Amino acid sequence: MTHPTIDQHDAWQALATHAREMRTTHLSELFTGAPGRHAALTRRAAGLTLDLSKQRWRDETLERLLDLAREAEVPGAIRALLAGERVNRSEDRPALHTALRLPPEASLVVEGEDLVPSVHATLERMATMVERFHAGQWRGATGRAIRDVVNLGVGGSDLGPLMVTHALADYRPEGVHTIDVHFASTMDGSQLADYLARLNPETTLFVLSSKSFTTIDTLSNARTARDWLMARLMGENREEGVDADLVMRQHFIGVSASPEKMNEWGIAEEHQLAFWEWVGGRYSLWGAIGLPIALVVGMDHFRELLAGAHAMDRHFSEAPLADNLPVLLALAGVWNVNFLDIRAHSILPYDGRLEFFAAYLEQLEMESNGKSVTHDGGEVGYSTCPVLWGQLGPNAQHAFYQLLHQGTQAVECDFIAPKVRYDDVEDPATRDHLMGQHRLTLANCFAQSRVLMLGDEAIEEDGPRPVHKRYRGNQPSSTLLLDRLTPATLGALIALYEHKVFVQATIWDINPFDQWGVELGKKIAGETQRILEHQADIADMDDSTRGLIEAVWAAERGAR
Amino acid sequence: MTHPTIDQHDAWQALATHAREMRTTHLSELFTGAPGRHAALTRRAAGLTLDLSKQRWRDETLERLLDLAREAEVPGAIRALLAGERVNRSEDRPALHTALRLPPEASLVVEGEDLVPSVHATLERMATMVERFHAGQWRGATGRAIRDVVNLGVGGSDLGPLMVTHALADYRPEGVHTIDVHFASTMDGSQLADYLARLNPETTLFVLSSKSFTTIDTLSNARTARDWLMARLMGENREEGVDADLVMRQHFIGVSASPEKMNEWGIAEEHQLAFWEWVGGRYSLWGAIGLPIALVVGMDHFRELLAGAHAMDRHFSEAPLADNLPVLLALAGVWNVNFLDIRAHSILPYDGRLEFFAAYLEQLEMESNGKSVTHDGGEVGYSTCPVLWGQLGPNAQHAFYQLLHQGTQAVECDFIAPKVRYDDVEDPATRDHLMGQHRLTLANCFAQSRVLMLGDEAIEEDGPRPVHKRYRGNQPSSTLLLDRLTPATLGALIALYEHKVFVQATIWDINPFDQWGVELGKKIAGETQRILEHQADIADMDDSTRGLIEAVWAAERGAR
Repeated sequence: MTHPTIDQHDAWQALATHAREMRTTHLSELFTGAPGRHAALTRRAAGLTLDLSKQRWRDETLERLLDLAREAEVPGAIRALLAGERVNRSEDRPALHTALRLPPEASLVVEGEDLVPSVHATLERMATMVERFHAGQWRGATGRAIRDVVNLGVGGSDLGPLMVTHALADYRPEGVHTIDVHFASTMDGSQLADYLARLNPETTLFVLSSKSFTTIDTLSNARTARDWLMARLMGENREEGVDADLVMRQHFIGVSASPEKMNEWGIAEEHQLAFWEWVGGRYSLWGAIGLPIALVVGMDHFRELLAGAHAMDRHFSEAPLADNLPVLLALAGVWNVNFLDIRAHSILPYDGRLEFFAAYLEQLEMESNGKSVTHDGGEVGYSTCPVLWGQLGPNAQHAFYQLLHQGTQAVECDFIAPKVRYDDVEDPATRDHLMGQHRLTLANCFAQSRVLMLGDEAIEEDGPRPVHKRYRGNQPSSTLLLDRLTPATLGALIALYEHKVFVQATIWDINPFDQWGVELGKKIAGETQRILEHQADIADMDDSTRGLIEAVWAAERGAR
Repeated sequence: MTHPTIDQHDAWQALATHAREMRTTHLSELFTGAPGRHAALTRRAAGLTLDLSKQRWRDETLERLLDLAREAEVPGAIRALLAGERVNRSEDRPALHTALRLPPEASLVVEGEDLVPSVHATLERMATMVERFHAGQWRGATGRAIRDVVNLGVGGSDLGPLMVTHALADYRPEGVHTIDVHFASTMDGSQLADYLARLNPETTLFVLSSKSFTTIDTLSNARTARDWLMARLMGENREEGVDADLVMRQHFIGVSASPEKMNEWGIAEEHQLAFWEWVGGRYSLWGAIGLPIALVVGMDHFRELLAGAHAMDRHFSEAPLADNLPVLLALAGVWNVNFLDIRAHSILPYDGRLEFFAAYLEQLEMESNGKSVTHDGGEVGYSTCPVLWGQLGPNAQHAFYQLLHQGTQAVECDFIAPKVRYDDVEDPATRDHLMGQHRLTLANCFAQSRVLMLGDEAIEEDGPRPVHKRYRGNQPSSTLLLDRLTPATLGALIALYEHKVFVQATIWDINPFDQWGVELGKKIAGETQRILEHQADIADMDDSTRGLIEAVWAAERGAR
């Protein structure tokens, strides 16, 4: 017997009926004669305030969406996730990123083993490493203290650490030996080449981050880095006593779920940080993959990041559905995607420190929920993850807001900003100036969501306006305010989106923790490379691919 | 009498009928028994090869689309654009970015004046400036040669120069005084603060780029920069003879269409570069806004960039519609958006140097064609610009390709890569290694478009596979190969997309050169800022905005 699919459930059907009415209701109408709408649709948790009043819904909508969440057994799914059940069914394992941020006094027994001690053992290993760097005691092969760390990783081993180190750059600890952290991810070596041109090999260390330790992008950069170090440190001018083993030991750290592969590659055992198969790449910044973060902000701030995420985990676990931030954010998305047919979602932070947050969420959401097969192996008959993209809000105002305001596409937007910033600047004149810049930024944030909602109604009419100056409004948005941007609120913010993704996956009945969609591409890329290198036959290729490869061959011949 | 709208034309109706059949045709079927499809659907111009064979169309589709282009009077529109007619009708002026790349011997008389001499006069002024920098003769107020240039600009005054300087970083001229160029755009001062922390005020110059010279984001950064220079250079330790005028003169260049506003701000007249009202911000990198590009790559390479764009302009003007790259690329988009209901478009360069190309195109396309009002003032009854987003292809493989392969959304993709790279590296071993990395990158590029097209058919079946490992395929894409990435081919590539946007706007009967959609937001932001600063009354605000502002006020009180 097969279960009814979610779109066959009563709550879904009721929402579909209700949506027919709501589709003709303009967002501005929902505010008319509804004082208290903001308060009624705003929730707080873990230093975050989420205003959902600019979504195109009313009380009845939300009630029906909560019915849907219950019919989809969201509460049970939350319990299963946090308890370490095998929620990643296609790979038959749990998804335990939340375990990485449990406090040391907690305990989580999964399949007979308490995970907390081993999680904290890894944190301790990280702490010892970070301390050595910050004391200027991690020395390169020639005896000089390491000053630059280059993270080699891609996807989950890049976007999380990159986003967080950038967001928390104000939180560098004082009085320690400064480590500058850089990120190289591109397969073609472009970024790495830039760094190698200006870094000193004597004081540069590479972190090789790859869950499988087989990612070709990362390993191919790692080989380039190793060649560079060997050529520079072991060349004619090398110091007495510098040998290859020493270079390998002092200039590489490995972070992976595969110690065997790290050994093979030559990472010294004491410089390996292992993590677990049950942590997905895009959920992994909370543990060893977060080493670059800890190198920048220090372990105390790194632990605050974990504590903020844990606060959101507890909220997710304990708050009733109707007050539960991840659940509500997920339901707003489901409402937009499945009932209002809004297929695009823009992420718009109003704080320069969150420059990489949209890129981070693009992976988190689209790799998790860009799926179309249910747990039972059926093809879904409804839309799942929308296209997500974004940019710093003030910059996007000068780039693509035109489409949001006057294009033909409906788009959901998330506005994100800290309430307060710069109030701790010492010099009063500078403080006033900077706080003014922050208020200007907030004013833009609030003004944009207002205009997107109201359209022309946002201004008093000063006579008839030509039609190309009119604004339709009616674009839904959420506004998420951080009390301020700290390690703790950033941790809570990321965890909020992780759980939002999980709730949506639960409703859509898809697995957010696998990524089979990337496997076939890897395999075909290998075949294609062999053909490009003349090591395999081109005959089986389709006509287009054959044409493209032949064009490259012709160009290579011409270049010779 | 009103004209029939484009969707009432015969060609549109015929396409709508044809599309019903094509919607059920899988892309892979179009390759079956169609040898020569690649050759038949590939075109070359200006160092670019465009393979459109992986679009979901057949000969008949293309013929009907060409009919549509003719019925929309695309050939006449191209002539009008290039001749300097007032194609930007809502602002009643021409759109003459193509004039910026005319060779000196050309002539273009627009409304009685030949523009070519004044265009080249500006280029000569730029050349003189660049020469001074490259000779180490542009000195700061304390007499030291300028070494760092920070571009302050946002939107069109940021994305174009940023994208091109990054793409052409290999083209730095040899034997000149090196200038490092940086870009600060964010309104909240985050990026600028990073630079100020590490640059030396004595050797740093700021380029203020703003067409109107009223952009608050840029002016607020400019004020911060000025304060920083004055405090550092005129402080207690100031050199004899360093006065404010000298700082202003030697540390600022202004680029704007408003000399008056540059004067007011205090930019020395000889350090102003003016440009024209008839150049749109997002089309402006070809002239004075391109100064940061010229500072990095030198004027010779900058002129090659212009020549490449001009070669594409000539192709656009002269090639028959059926061989015209911008027209064909535009028609593929129209087919996908309007007839196959594909509302998202991903830009995927396979070359790390094109890291900012997707962000650049997001602005170019969405700000130009995110419109819904026809030239006659009617509301369009069809979709216009889709949501565009992108990322370096190899990185996106680890981020959002999952959604492209197994999500529920149809997405059009543009794959972009140079055929050859690294063949000019001197050392043979390094050359082989790097050329191998490039081939690996190309292999991934070709493999992905192949899998997106064919889905499961891309591999030999090795027995039944579970449904979560299946790939539907049928995602359309274009592949654009550059002979190699040079200033000339990059110029041609950008011009290709500019003209593609123009052709689509012509078919959709919208104005790609205005951006009224950003005006209301600016106005409301001003009002909102006055309220946030307690200088205006909050009573007229909607309930949500009021709630958000009060939350900020409460937080500010709490922070004190």
